Amino acid sequence: MTVSEIERLIQLLARLPGLGPRSARRAVLQMIKRPETLMLPLAAALRQAAENIKTCGTCGNLDTRDPCAICREPGRNAAIVCVVEEVADLWAIERSGAFRGLYHVLGGTLSALDGRGPDQLNIGALMGRIEAARSGAVPVAEVILALGTTVDGQTTAHYIAERLEPLGVSVSRLAEGGPVGGELDYLDDGTLSAALKARRPA
Amino acid sequence: MTVSEIERLIQLLARLPGLGPRSARRAVLQMIKRPETLMLPLAAALRQAAENIKTCGTCGNLDTRDPCAICREPGRNAAIVCVVEEVADLWAIERSGAFRGLYHVLGGTLSALDGRGPDQLNIGALMGRIEAARSGAVPVAEVILALGTTVDGQTTAHYIAERLEPLGVSVSRLAEGGPVGGELDYLDDGTLSAALKARRPA
Repeated sequence: MTVSEIERLIQLLARLPGLGPRSARRAVLQMIKRPETLMLPLAAALRQAAENIKTCGTCGNLDTRDPCAICREPGRNAAIVCVVEEVADLWAIERSGAFRGLYHVLGGTLSALDGRGPDQLNIGALMGRIEAARSGAVPVAEVILALGTTVDGQTTAHYIAERLEPLGVSVSRLAEGGPVGGELDYLDDGTLSAALKARRPA
Repeated sequence: MTVSEIERLIQLLARLPGLGPRSARRAVLQMIKRPETLMLPLAAALRQAAENIKTCGTCGNLDTRDPCAICREPGRNAAIVCVVEEVADLWAIERSGAFRGLYHVLGGTLSALDGRGPDQLNIGALMGRIEAARSGAVPVAEVILALGTTVDGQTTAHYIAERLEPLGVSVSRLAEGGPVGGELDYLDDGTLSAALKARRPA
């Protein structure tokens, strides 16, 4: 039995995060039922994305143009730069609609275990960007380190904060605490004690 | 901000079963990191599948040729036909390697709730196929009704068994019982009592 084309499609789909062989098979069967509305548009969208999406040379975001739409948007406050680990984090903050500054994507965190040093991350470009802005129209006044509260994320935040110190930029971090609309009962102990320490007048 | 191409790709991926918007985003970000090894091959595989995969006119399986590879395979026993609801069920039985007869895919079950009658299923073709084989080289001796043990699955099995009766074909069903390698503790009551009723000498 050689259903090689179907098998190959399933194997490729199964390599996506979140899909195993079983869900990849289900996805293929569903797509085959309506090739015109899902399968062919998806094939075209994938090809176009592979050909057209580039990494923004300024902030590291992904877009069809370089600089990206966020770096080009006129209404944004260039005096605040939000540093994130990955493009997914940038997208998450954009979806919240709570931030109107610019971004800088590191491409990961420092990691002793994985042997990832500062040179493997987009840190030099961050420094160069802030240096260049000092003599420009809008100097960077604040850098928000929106990194994960993992050991590696916090190590990276410390390292960047130290390198930013001589540049006279104010450095901040995201607040830790309970999720909005979440139940106390489901909070882990670490988050709960962080939320208690950071309590504010009601 | 218009990242329309990326957004469109995420929306299309999120329509696959098993993927929501979050995992679709993760999948896109992972694919963009290696367009040559995953994104472009996936685009090509999807396009080829949409263009080349057809439904087998004999059994209802999906393949690039009609009749499908299973119907064409010389070593198979054409005297036994295994009736399944969906192509996914056919693939599951094929993976088990335990069956070397032919298949017939119904394309669903009878359903009073969804208003699905015998005419919406591939049942007429099953009867025609068995009729035609009677005067052929290999008449169908046995039909295995490998349908789900849901109400609709069992209704469909009853209906087909009744229609097969005048044709003088022996009709069988899959055994019910505990999974091989599974723990008793996790079995639901219905399966457990079915397994008890169908007990056999050790």
